[in-house]
Amino acid sequence: MLYFEDLTPGRRFLTASHTVTLEEIQQFASHFDPQFFHLDPVAAENSVFNGLAASGWHIASLSMRLVVNSELKQVAGGLVGMKVDNMRWPRPTRAGDTLCTEIEVLSQRTSSSQPDFGIVSLQWTTRNQDEKIAVQLETAIWVQRRGESAV
Amino acid sequence: MLYFEDLTPGRRFLTASHTVTLEEIQQFASHFDPQFFHLDPVAAENSVFNGLAASGWHIASLSMRLVVNSELKQVAGGLVGMKVDNMRWPRPTRAGDTLCTEIEVLSQRTSSSQPDFGIVSLQWTTRNQDEKIAVQLETAIWVQRRGESAV
Repeated sequence: MLYFEDLTPGRRFLTASHTVTLEEIQQFASHFDPQFFHLDPVAAENSVFNGLAASGWHIASLSMRLVVNSELKQVAGGLVGMKVDNMRWPRPTRAGDTLCTEIEVLSQRTSSSQPDFGIVSLQWTTRNQDEKIAVQLETAIWVQRRGESAV
Repeated sequence: MLYFEDLTPGRRFLTASHTVTLEEIQQFASHFDPQFFHLDPVAAENSVFNGLAASGWHIASLSMRLVVNSELKQVAGGLVGMKVDNMRWPRPTRAGDTLCTEIEVLSQRTSSSQPDFGIVSLQWTTRNQDEKIAVQLETAIWVQRRGESAV
């Protein structure tokens, strides 16, 4: 298990990678973001993306899966985001791109109201096969402290 | 079409509503957020959520769909978020909850680098059937200006 005390600022984790397919992009978009530049490869050529691009919500959700399946799945209490800030997509993600997320601990603080837990701020950076950023965000999660019984 | 000039601060839009099912919650979670409190109704009773709850990414993505299918689908250039800030989930969303998103224009500014476009900041507030907030966020989108030819 990973407890609050283990998630010290500067510590980094790297997820496995995932290659995004056209079918995945279209399936997510048809459920959650049905805009033509996420669905129709031909029409998307004349869009702001200059070609079919994945929904930003898809790439954020894929990053969540990568994080949940990484070493961070051992976080005591589970991965539950309280808040997300500064989420941005510097470039479109295309079918065939291979994504991988790096997680860095930015800061941690204890909670006076919940002494058994602390709050850990993380930055997620999801990069493609060219090491270019697909999505980046900051999130804060509650993490259980290493109590006497868990030492 | 809705142009930059139409999206004046204080203007509000309301989406249709959607009732979230257990199957939808489990399907999204199995793809993107496979943690037990989003998948297993019995085990979730002993989680931080005190029962099965939808993934926060699911509720954000559902809000996107509601917005894309609302009057805002007429935004010139499409709904493309540059950035998301201050996204938070004050309470869990359960199977059977009926969600609806209100969008409020917070501010707008022109762009010196791209004179044909402006940047519009929006707040999305997704509420459940009890008028309680399920997710809230702020986002900035590029919107085409009403050019001479479009007047």
